[in-house]
Amino acid sequence: MSLTTVKKAVEIVVNNSGNFGIEEVDFLNTLGRVLKENIFADRDFPPFDRVSMDGIAISAEAFNSGQRTFKIEGIQAAGSAQLTLQNPANCMEAMTGAVLPKNTDAAIQYELLTIENGIAKVNLEEIKKFQNIHLKGTDKKQGDLLIKENTLISPAEIGIFATVGKTAVNVAKQPKVMIVSTGNELVEVDENPADHQIRRSNVFTMVSLLEKLQIKAETLHILDDKDVLLTKIESLLNNFDVLIFSGAVSKGKFDFIPEVLDQLGVKKLFHQVKQRPGKPFWFGKINNKVIFAFPGNPVSTFVNCIKYFYPWYYKSVGLNFENKQQAVLSEDFYFKPEMTYFLQVKLNQMDGKLWATPISGKGSGDLANLADADAFLELPDNRSNFTKGEVFPVIIYR
Amino acid sequence: MSLTTVKKAVEIVVNNSGNFGIEEVDFLNTLGRVLKENIFADRDFPPFDRVSMDGIAISAEAFNSGQRTFKIEGIQAAGSAQLTLQNPANCMEAMTGAVLPKNTDAAIQYELLTIENGIAKVNLEEIKKFQNIHLKGTDKKQGDLLIKENTLISPAEIGIFATVGKTAVNVAKQPKVMIVSTGNELVEVDENPADHQIRRSNVFTMVSLLEKLQIKAETLHILDDKDVLLTKIESLLNNFDVLIFSGAVSKGKFDFIPEVLDQLGVKKLFHQVKQRPGKPFWFGKINNKVIFAFPGNPVSTFVNCIKYFYPWYYKSVGLNFENKQQAVLSEDFYFKPEMTYFLQVKLNQMDGKLWATPISGKGSGDLANLADADAFLELPDNRSNFTKGEVFPVIIYR
Repeated sequence: MSLTTVKKAVEIVVNNSGNFGIEEVDFLNTLGRVLKENIFADRDFPPFDRVSMDGIAISAEAFNSGQRTFKIEGIQAAGSAQLTLQNPANCMEAMTGAVLPKNTDAAIQYELLTIENGIAKVNLEEIKKFQNIHLKGTDKKQGDLLIKENTLISPAEIGIFATVGKTAVNVAKQPKVMIVSTGNELVEVDENPADHQIRRSNVFTMVSLLEKLQIKAETLHILDDKDVLLTKIESLLNNFDVLIFSGAVSKGKFDFIPEVLDQLGVKKLFHQVKQRPGKPFWFGKINNKVIFAFPGNPVSTFVNCIKYFYPWYYKSVGLNFENKQQAVLSEDFYFKPEMTYFLQVKLNQMDGKLWATPISGKGSGDLANLADADAFLELPDNRSNFTKGEVFPVIIYR
Repeated sequence: MSLTTVKKAVEIVVNNSGNFGIEEVDFLNTLGRVLKENIFADRDFPPFDRVSMDGIAISAEAFNSGQRTFKIEGIQAAGSAQLTLQNPANCMEAMTGAVLPKNTDAAIQYELLTIENGIAKVNLEEIKKFQNIHLKGTDKKQGDLLIKENTLISPAEIGIFATVGKTAVNVAKQPKVMIVSTGNELVEVDENPADHQIRRSNVFTMVSLLEKLQIKAETLHILDDKDVLLTKIESLLNNFDVLIFSGAVSKGKFDFIPEVLDQLGVKKLFHQVKQRPGKPFWFGKINNKVIFAFPGNPVSTFVNCIKYFYPWYYKSVGLNFENKQQAVLSEDFYFKPEMTYFLQVKLNQMDGKLWATPISGKGSGDLANLADADAFLELPDNRSNFTKGEVFPVIIYR
């Protein structure tokens, strides 16, 4: 069987992205979600000529005619309606954030004033019209586009939602995801495994990887029994948008997943990718449901979840995101097989570059190494020698 | 008044970090928290000599004596107790993840076999002892340290907790944080502001910035009234570990925060930092409580929260984390004042470098620009000319 290249596999996965609709969410709960509407300025920003220093507001004309002392007529506080300077030879104290008082057009900060007996003396020889004034609409005009649809929402966007009074925000609905472990050797986390058993861990790693995407996935364990698998998976296909499996996709006698999925009418889009670790990855589709069946060893599951599920998700929610992160290999590395190698690396910033240092692993099963590393450096499948200083794509998971 | 340098301000803030104790949390809820115990291997990993390919297990000695065909005695499935090969001239089918059957010491994958009538023929001239076997304890020995105390928990660590049966994990307790906005010009997000008013936004930006640290902060608005501020802040100091203010720390007539905090016995550790934006930042302490009083304009609050609160938090929870991210300035830039300048930039990966392109802003109040940028490039205070290609620290907020 010829293996699918990593590039082709990503392409197929992404081309089978879904669309799970839109939901309205309270703006404070949208962090990390994908915006599904354009956000416009509901008014000019600033909404008024705004004083940007604490001090006084005066008429520039009065100053330019030679006047240097100004009687204080009143105080324009932030949050008060606009006051009017009655006498253009006077001044108004005006605070940061306040509306510029009527009949004034320059603000001078306290640091440049001497105030005595209600008279402000300006210790300056020159001022500019509109100095220290943030004029209405200079940042944005009412109706201007502030945030584009399909933006990943960060704290900056949350602030803008608040500013424009957008209490409820349309965001992409998340897919319903079920993560299934198989394998008779697995016991629960709170159980004591017998000598030949191990605890379930991949499903929880993946729950956490999906939590980073704000997806709350469910989990299930199914024993390596073909009939049980058939019944349970059929039911899961009716209730979830995505099924992710861990294990039972290789050549073993009890690796029933591909066969069972085939029996259930799921169309295989590829099986086995030209990569290490993670080669036995199986991917298929039925109606609008997709099935990621990852090999069961921990590092394979981990890297495949980020390499394939993440871009599938981004595309599905309309996020125009491509992982363009790169890192520089910090030492020579050799990998013979003609496969894309996901090399576990430790990252280190220096001189504006991100350096990747290989962590020596014990093969694809070594979960503990994931804790020692920060990322996978993606070494292409058409070479064996990789040289210190070369730049490669990197998948950072911290 | 002489300004505190950014470096000194960070130092003071970090030196006044707290310690909020430890709590036990279900392992699945620890993502993004800081581990407060060492995690050890509860057994060897792998816990048994594990077959790492689907195929057969044989005695290498039998193969090396010239034998190439092996009668299949049985199947060693993953999850079954160890079987014993009765006749060393036979073989046992053995699956990935299974215990290596007794009396065997090499595994050969199906791809290299021809199986007919219960006899497996090995299509190989040479094998190695222990090939395709992941020997017990080669990854980690029982008692080995897998994750160090004070690690920030990522999906990789969640997987390891599961593997070693760590269902409840000791993590750093989070500080109780109250975020307070002041300013009579502010109205609620769901209100329609009058011409001279704006909506509250900074507190929500900061709630989101803290949410990224897994801190659930509370929020409050207090009007610019000295007596009200005194009463309310006194009560807040009794109920929270950290108060963060937005606004009322500059030179305005209604900037009561420093005065009120002083009256309440809070010790000022600095006021005004040699930076733009964010200069009027006030920081103080009383008993074990710290108070971050940030200036009220949106970009100042935003950058100060990341630049100061984040490292204070990291130190408080014992995380040995320093932001070492750097980026390369993509065009010449000029900034005259002798202040650290937090330049809003858009980031772009190219050739293993992270390039930072300035976004032209309208001063410190322009929240909308935050949505157009990705980060702040931190330009030092001792120069005015910054040249394309130079590398500076960068604070990434997406």
